[in-house]
Amino acid sequence: MDEVLLSVNLIWVMLGTILVFFMHAGFAMVEAGFTRSKNAVNIIMKNFLTISIGGIVYFLCGYAIMFGDTLGGIFGTSGFALNGVDDLSFFIFQTMFAATGATILSGAVAERTNIFAYIGVIILMSLFVYPVVGHWVWSGQGWLTDLGFIDFAGSTVVHLTGAVAAFVAAVMVGPRLGKYENGRVNVITGHSIPLGALGVFLLWFGWFGFNGASTLAADPELVPNVIANTFFAAAAGVAATAFYTKFRYGHIDGSLTLNGALAGLVGITAGAANVSIIGSLIIGLVAAPFLVEGVRFLEWKLKVDDPVGAIAVHGICGIWGTLAVGLFDIDGQGLFYGGGFGLLGIQAIGIIATIAWVSVSVAVGLLIIKAFIPLRVTAEEEIAGLDVMEHGAPAYEFQDIFKSSAVRGETFAHRLTHFGKTQQNHVKEEQHV
Amino acid sequence: MDEVLLSVNLIWVMLGTILVFFMHAGFAMVEAGFTRSKNAVNIIMKNFLTISIGGIVYFLCGYAIMFGDTLGGIFGTSGFALNGVDDLSFFIFQTMFAATGATILSGAVAERTNIFAYIGVIILMSLFVYPVVGHWVWSGQGWLTDLGFIDFAGSTVVHLTGAVAAFVAAVMVGPRLGKYENGRVNVITGHSIPLGALGVFLLWFGWFGFNGASTLAADPELVPNVIANTFFAAAAGVAATAFYTKFRYGHIDGSLTLNGALAGLVGITAGAANVSIIGSLIIGLVAAPFLVEGVRFLEWKLKVDDPVGAIAVHGICGIWGTLAVGLFDIDGQGLFYGGGFGLLGIQAIGIIATIAWVSVSVAVGLLIIKAFIPLRVTAEEEIAGLDVMEHGAPAYEFQDIFKSSAVRGETFAHRLTHFGKTQQNHVKEEQHV
Amino acid sequence: MDEVLLSVNLIWVMLGTILVFFMHAGFAMVEAGFTRSKNAVNIIMKNFLTISIGGIVYFLCGYAIMFGDTLGGIFGTSGFALNGVDDLSFFIFQTMFAATGATILSGAVAERTNIFAYIGVIILMSLFVYPVVGHWVWSGQGWLTDLGFIDFAGSTVVHLTGAVAAFVAAVMVGPRLGKYENGRVNVITGHSIPLGALGVFLLWFGWFGFNGASTLAADPELVPNVIANTFFAAAAGVAATAFYTKFRYGHIDGSLTLNGALAGLVGITAGAANVSIIGSLIIGLVAAPFLVEGVRFLEWKLKVDDPVGAIAVHGICGIWGTLAVGLFDIDGQGLFYGGGFGLLGIQAIGIIATIAWVSVSVAVGLLIIKAFIPLRVTAEEEIAGLDVMEHGAPAYEFQDIFKSSAVRGETFAHRLTHFGKTQQNHVKEEQHV
Repeated sequence: MDEVLLSVNLIWVMLGTILVFFMHAGFAMVEAGFTRSKNAVNIIMKNFLTISIGGIVYFLCGYAIMFGDTLGGIFGTSGFALNGVDDLSFFIFQTMFAATGATILSGAVAERTNIFAYIGVIILMSLFVYPVVGHWVWSGQGWLTDLGFIDFAGSTVVHLTGAVAAFVAAVMVGPRLGKYENGRVNVITGHSIPLGALGVFLLWFGWFGFNGASTLAADPELVPNVIANTFFAAAAGVAATAFYTKFRYGHIDGSLTLNGALAGLVGITAGAANVSIIGSLIIGLVAAPFLVEGVRFLEWKLKVDDPVGAIAVHGICGIWGTLAVGLFDIDGQGLFYGGGFGLLGIQAIGIIATIAWVSVSVAVGLLIIKAFIPLRVTAEEEIAGLDVMEHGAPAYEFQDIFKSSAVRGETFAHRLTHFGKTQQNHVKEEQHV
Repeated sequence: MDEVLLSVNLIWVMLGTILVFFMHAGFAMVEAGFTRSKNAVNIIMKNFLTISIGGIVYFLCGYAIMFGDTLGGIFGTSGFALNGVDDLSFFIFQTMFAATGATILSGAVAERTNIFAYIGVIILMSLFVYPVVGHWVWSGQGWLTDLGFIDFAGSTVVHLTGAVAAFVAAVMVGPRLGKYENGRVNVITGHSIPLGALGVFLLWFGWFGFNGASTLAADPELVPNVIANTFFAAAAGVAATAFYTKFRYGHIDGSLTLNGALAGLVGITAGAANVSIIGSLIIGLVAAPFLVEGVRFLEWKLKVDDPVGAIAVHGICGIWGTLAVGLFDIDGQGLFYGGGFGLLGIQAIGIIATIAWVSVSVAVGLLIIKAFIPLRVTAEEEIAGLDVMEHGAPAYEFQDIFKSSAVRGETFAHRLTHFGKTQQNHVKEEQHV
Repeated sequence: MDEVLLSVNLIWVMLGTILVFFMHAGFAMVEAGFTRSKNAVNIIMKNFLTISIGGIVYFLCGYAIMFGDTLGGIFGTSGFALNGVDDLSFFIFQTMFAATGATILSGAVAERTNIFAYIGVIILMSLFVYPVVGHWVWSGQGWLTDLGFIDFAGSTVVHLTGAVAAFVAAVMVGPRLGKYENGRVNVITGHSIPLGALGVFLLWFGWFGFNGASTLAADPELVPNVIANTFFAAAAGVAATAFYTKFRYGHIDGSLTLNGALAGLVGITAGAANVSIIGSLIIGLVAAPFLVEGVRFLEWKLKVDDPVGAIAVHGICGIWGTLAVGLFDIDGQGLFYGGGFGLLGIQAIGIIATIAWVSVSVAVGLLIIKAFIPLRVTAEEEIAGLDVMEHGAPAYEFQDIFKSSAVRGETFAHRLTHFGKTQQNHVKEEQHV
């Protein structure tokens, strides 16, 4: 009987593991779609290396620092390379989370960061920056857990950690060439909204595992609520961002609305098991203006160049989500449910501690990396594109389709009747429309 | 023991929920790929808003109308905003189905429909058009259930409903500019078959959850049969459409063959739990000519402009699938299994009732929407493209890759040796091939 | 109790079934992305037909030959069209594996193979080439099983089988026009690395089901180890290939590094249930140079034109993975775990037997096909592109986005203020960057 239950929970956690893995495909597509086509191979390589190297580093060290026997509630000290660790199911689920921090960062410093310096960042993040925060909150022995800090699936542990690292790195690496010149802020649009949209869908899909399996058991009381909250916060984020950008900029903005889904998802991550559906809708709704104004504030006031909006999505909405548990917790601790300001204060402490730890450790880490490897590619490489310069080939080759179209229009037009209609009509139609 | 079984069934239904959610990614990619690149952001926005707003509306009202205490077997009247509803697992699974009707419609009216009018349609569909049909068939209290109507996972409830709405909307919105001119029917091809193909794969993948979890339990007798039927009907649809288009048009048609998978899937949805694998193969096989001739009939005879073929796929094949249960039901009711014409008649009644209800309610709904919001964008906007005009940015930016390619071909050619071969050879090769 | 366990294992195997199905989406995207845009529809059609026709043929015959009552341990003889077969769950899981061999081949002969000849190959592969090897190893009655051959999820049964078939077919079909001319080897790059990368992610994601559900039960002892091994071998493959190509060619090669993930996955498939995480890391690590040098050796020395590198990935790494079980088996049979050379020898016998059977049967099969259908398209068709010539339409149409961009740059610039910035700045920025 207990053995069957073990198998049941195993399936749930394995499903979650696989789905969180798949989120890395989502990050890769979002980051590729929202940046320029000349750097698409490079950002994809960075994403593949993040999950790969990050996972290996986490296996060797990160997991031990996160879940090993605690040293004063600050970090773990046992279980390196899984020495003495029995529960592989829990370990592999956690591994998929581990590289997420670095992945968030990769988008914010896209299009100009040296890939070997970035590999240093991956190691930094999965070796100890993320594991330390994780130890505080999820090891059962951390000082934030003792305090009563609630972060169900990681608005702070994963997303804020990634965003603070992203902020520090984006400042230290500097903006892309041409982003800020002569006092002007130039918009550098991504090269494929459909690719970015696919990425958002992959992330949303994977997030059901990220939040859902963070229950660690297929609990019929808890899981459906977590899944529903995850969905509705994202849904509210999309709808609210669409209307907010219409109101703010006169049109439903494509890339911001896509990011609106992620804003809602980041927002609900801390409280997915603690709030009602109404709570999740409000969390997603409020995330929208935070996202839109956050993106603007970072880009225009702080002049931090974040090509994919990662800092606003994961950082500002991560903070919002963490605080929102203090507002909407239905188990008596939420401010709006008669719980007073207690939990809200604890959540704020966790946020501040995370910001402090991550910003300092990443800044120091980047300075050390910089002593060995330049953080940026050369201007020549940045202008020509990282794909051709660093990976030897561009992301796309469409020449032959144009040649093929020419062939189609001329020599072989007679072969191409379709539904009884000649290709000439087709060309004509295209001239008209 | 019962509790463990609860957990087991929970996992199955949650897996289904997540997979059906993912179908919306499939719809978005299919509809973007099969329409023009100048409208890709717009159709993607519509798909994101469909699942988001549709889900919220269904939570607030639709679910109550679909599954609340019945009023004469016609619609439900309790459970608004889940008041008094306990089973969140069933609810969230149903929510993912709810927006599908509107999504089907979005493809059929793509490239010319005002996004705010379309938001009206989303609300219309998930608020009551779809929930009423759902109440008839799936609430356990509906008049069609009483009659003995069988629609396991929604050939009629979901797909025919969506397709009838799509037909009415496509007629009322009118064809795209340039589609029909001077008595000619112009083909307006989609902009990315690979994107459309990815979408079809996502839909097929998600459909295993759509049909599979409609069992609502991980029943070892039922589930493998449902999964196998779902697969084989789609497989037969693909193969049959490939050969049918070869025979009909002289080549294996790309977009029709992709739609062939969907035709098979829509066809098997009603009877996935009621037919044998042989039955599912025949259902998929027969769906192919229905699809191909249906697309042609709608486009050439009825002159209804449906850019993605949604009406034929979901409507004609939805009808076919619903009737097919009356032919192939293995539990003694199928005509070919000695069941006579009884079930076939009942299935026909359900189809006719659904067509009547959906066409009237959607037509009235659209007239009301039209009184406040124009259904179409302006001709100027349609010609320039909805992305730039309504969302402020195009879907794709490939300029820098061309510049990057130029750079590659000239200044940096010496850097680009690959496998000992210079770039010049590469260019030469391209000139040759 | 036993019934609940049945349901639990059912879910696990059904999840695996769905994930392995989804790998076909991955194959389609990898093969489309790594070949030229003028042939993208064609390769996608081939992939859709592979899973469709392959699945149907396997239902009718292949499954019987693979799992039916044995004839001397060589092939099965009962269960055609599932006659007398009860376990639909196992059957449908196996069906998803069945078409993989043909799919591997499709990439290797892409861009020049007649689609009807290729349909012949699909039938050949799923009718008996793959089922015979499967019978030897997985039926419980095969001669290789008797010998003690270990191939958990198919490094040999699936991947080597597919790769040997691919090798034979690539030789018999011949290289693409322009690949080898005047003693020069020309690089013909794929048209979309992002599409290929998406495909690799889909394959990696699906592989968790491929290996994970090959346990056939949600065994808490076994499954987490299989999932972890699958992940770490791929991760090591990515990291090692990135560094190896940097060392070998001076840059981190995009498409090879993506293939590095697949190399690790193919490598771990035989031993996923038999090795430790350290073993899986080494298997992935060693797969990298095998992949890179294998691609080079095939392309430059053997002059076999394999556009996507399928033969090296699935063949060379399939052999490596099969042998690696003989090195790293932790149950006492691995050479490095004190097991001597016994298992290693048995693994080698299985590899040789598979190569012999597949190469002969595919060569004979292709000769028979060739007697009726030319294996290649005409030179005219190959140069113009298979999409336009064989499917009546190109894969992509980007004309209207360029027109749309032009519109944007001129007439409607005043409408396109975004974050307070005019479009002119945007254009300016693009000129600069």
